Amino acid sequence: MPNPPLISPTQIDAAAVQAQLEQLARFSSAPAPAVTRVLWSEPDMQARAYLREQCATLGLEMREDGLGNLFARWLGTAPELPAVASGSHIDAIPNAGMYDGTVGVIGVLAAIRALQQVGFTPHRSIELVVFTAEEPTRFGVGCLGSRAMAGTLTLAQLASLRDSDGHTLEQARHAAGYTAELAHVAVPEGHYVAFIELHIEQGPVLEQAGIPIGIVQKIAAPSSLRITLTGEGGHAGAVLMPDRHDALLAAAELALAVEQAACSSGSPDTVGTTGVLRIAPGAVNSIPAHAVMEIDVRDTDLAARDRTLAAIRTATAAISIRRGVQATVELLNADPPAPCAPALTDTVRHVCQTLGIAAQPMISRAYHDSLFMARVCPITMIFIPCYKGYSHRPDEYAAPEAIATGIAVLAQTLAHLSQVSA
Amino acid sequence: MPNPPLISPTQIDAAAVQAQLEQLARFSSAPAPAVTRVLWSEPDMQARAYLREQCATLGLEMREDGLGNLFARWLGTAPELPAVASGSHIDAIPNAGMYDGTVGVIGVLAAIRALQQVGFTPHRSIELVVFTAEEPTRFGVGCLGSRAMAGTLTLAQLASLRDSDGHTLEQARHAAGYTAELAHVAVPEGHYVAFIELHIEQGPVLEQAGIPIGIVQKIAAPSSLRITLTGEGGHAGAVLMPDRHDALLAAAELALAVEQAACSSGSPDTVGTTGVLRIAPGAVNSIPAHAVMEIDVRDTDLAARDRTLAAIRTATAAISIRRGVQATVELLNADPPAPCAPALTDTVRHVCQTLGIAAQPMISRAYHDSLFMARVCPITMIFIPCYKGYSHRPDEYAAPEAIATGIAVLAQTLAHLSQVSA
Repeated sequence: MPNPPLISPTQIDAAAVQAQLEQLARFSSAPAPAVTRVLWSEPDMQARAYLREQCATLGLEMREDGLGNLFARWLGTAPELPAVASGSHIDAIPNAGMYDGTVGVIGVLAAIRALQQVGFTPHRSIELVVFTAEEPTRFGVGCLGSRAMAGTLTLAQLASLRDSDGHTLEQARHAAGYTAELAHVAVPEGHYVAFIELHIEQGPVLEQAGIPIGIVQKIAAPSSLRITLTGEGGHAGAVLMPDRHDALLAAAELALAVEQAACSSGSPDTVGTTGVLRIAPGAVNSIPAHAVMEIDVRDTDLAARDRTLAAIRTATAAISIRRGVQATVELLNADPPAPCAPALTDTVRHVCQTLGIAAQPMISRAYHDSLFMARVCPITMIFIPCYKGYSHRPDEYAAPEAIATGIAVLAQTLAHLSQVSA
Repeated sequence: MPNPPLISPTQIDAAAVQAQLEQLARFSSAPAPAVTRVLWSEPDMQARAYLREQCATLGLEMREDGLGNLFARWLGTAPELPAVASGSHIDAIPNAGMYDGTVGVIGVLAAIRALQQVGFTPHRSIELVVFTAEEPTRFGVGCLGSRAMAGTLTLAQLASLRDSDGHTLEQARHAAGYTAELAHVAVPEGHYVAFIELHIEQGPVLEQAGIPIGIVQKIAAPSSLRITLTGEGGHAGAVLMPDRHDALLAAAELALAVEQAACSSGSPDTVGTTGVLRIAPGAVNSIPAHAVMEIDVRDTDLAARDRTLAAIRTATAAISIRRGVQATVELLNADPPAPCAPALTDTVRHVCQTLGIAAQPMISRAYHDSLFMARVCPITMIFIPCYKGYSHRPDEYAAPEAIATGIAVLAQTLAHLSQVSA
């Protein structure tokens, strides 16, 4: 197999990448600079249509599964061999930014274009995967598309999902035009030879170190809880303080207990966040009777993560008893961490050396579709720095040069892997 | 002036009252048993139309002002004299019950019907007042109608009000068909000789004591604050705990500080409630960047109420600095308490004695339109027991007999006052 040509960052059409990222950002339910693109909303459907057009201009062969995962394949000379896959997601939580996920999708298109322009022909096919709903916004489950591809969600679990308007996943996907059977979403082992995801770091490490590339060795173990608190409502003027069972005050104590549990887990990497808190009835002169909290806990250290979850359950029980407020705790997900394949991290390191680009090993505290792709094939991730580590907010930013550097490393890595024999 | 005839509770058509209360409850944006009736929503407009029909069957003379306050007058033989007024409100906060306010509106209709049936003719006119927006739900100001009638809201203040959809009060009232000039809403002093409000207690005192009537001597001083917190958002997985400025955690500490401030005000009557807490972006994997809280503080003791407000401001400053979260505090309202007129409380006491109904003096910790009517004329309130003191919740309940007893006392009181010479 001949060595692939070298793709340097200057060979990446950074202006085209920037234009595509900006075009995607316009498909948003929130006014710029914020980006909100919820699964199968109008902006999400427009963004999907736009991506299919972009794939078509590169001559990629497209397929969509019953969940709306999009596969766009650059056919190799040995199309019967397992392909090299790369991709990410394009959905965005409310009031997010324009780089999370999108860089890893637009990046694959730019990598393929650069390889096509230097006349490279892949041996194995190279396939862009655009995953459905990496963000948990609509159905409360993160990485919906990749989880299903990895076979970790049963058909019964998929059938039980409902959004906050009460629509089932089945109704929602049909409304969006995805009617293929969900039984065919899972990807068989051996389907891909490798999966590589390019992504902004979403943390400050690379920017602070002044290093353009992070090579991910491990993805932290995510988990989330939903805690529902039911106290006693009443008129804010009429019920004296000792007679109250205020669901919001129980939730307030619990949110502080989540912080405390994460800070005292024994691992400096543990993070615990109450990202959702809704109360009812939600009127200034009414004692809150109900509260719903959604809590995110993660760590690369599984034991520390699980100690934190246990501490939150203990605190919930104590607060519930003390305040006379009923509590139910649902574990929404608790996934193990994913190790990256040493053969792949070595390849990326070698590519960086060849191109003369500094790189460092990293862990990913944020989780990604790669966490689930790790169950199907060897994976790694390529991180690039982003401004102050900001992510999931409108001022999320990665410089065009940083993105181009990441895409060059991705292109070279995909080209290398596409030449690997069976 | 002849003594009015005696109206006993059995002369009140309790079945008709119940039917009218149930019909009003059907005008709701929430499914039964919850009642949600927000100012000038479809259900509110339907309820208003229904009330006008009911007033018409009693031959009352109707008038509506530019805010939609409804006045329905039973003309006396001396229509030139200041009238005796009585009434309450029909709006309901989200997921409330069917008795708050409505008993004091339907009660006046039933009282007039009972007096008409025994052949009574009032000397002074008796006027039902149905106040617009006693609840602060839509425009953030409680007692909108009675405040404006009392002249405590300037036209500039009224013009500055906006609902959460950004509609001005001016736009909203015009859309509802209320176009008369707001300058004419204020009621001149001497317009009414007295105002009496029949209301469920919204507290447990009467039920626990087994006493059917409470005669209100004083209405507690209400106040409310809006506190806006701005921290720093970010990805829940990627920002380590020591680097965070989480707006929700600041809000959680503040909600607990409100409770603490109310409990340590030095007055056992102080209540402090965080009834509204909204966070953004509100996604499970995103650190809350923004929080808005609305806080209600009240007491019959003005100094204790104001000490509590001051303690909340102090706590806000301390939490803001410690967590690196910006805070702004707006005082939405801070009204003085209202004393009731001894001549009126004496009249109600005398009526109860005459009818052989037990009564006790009370204070009202909830506020009512009476708080503002007190600036225009002498006032008092008649309380009846309600189940466990529940209010502002779907299981709010007052027994038909308890309501009939309250209406009999109201009818007799209105009849007495209508015979008082100038």
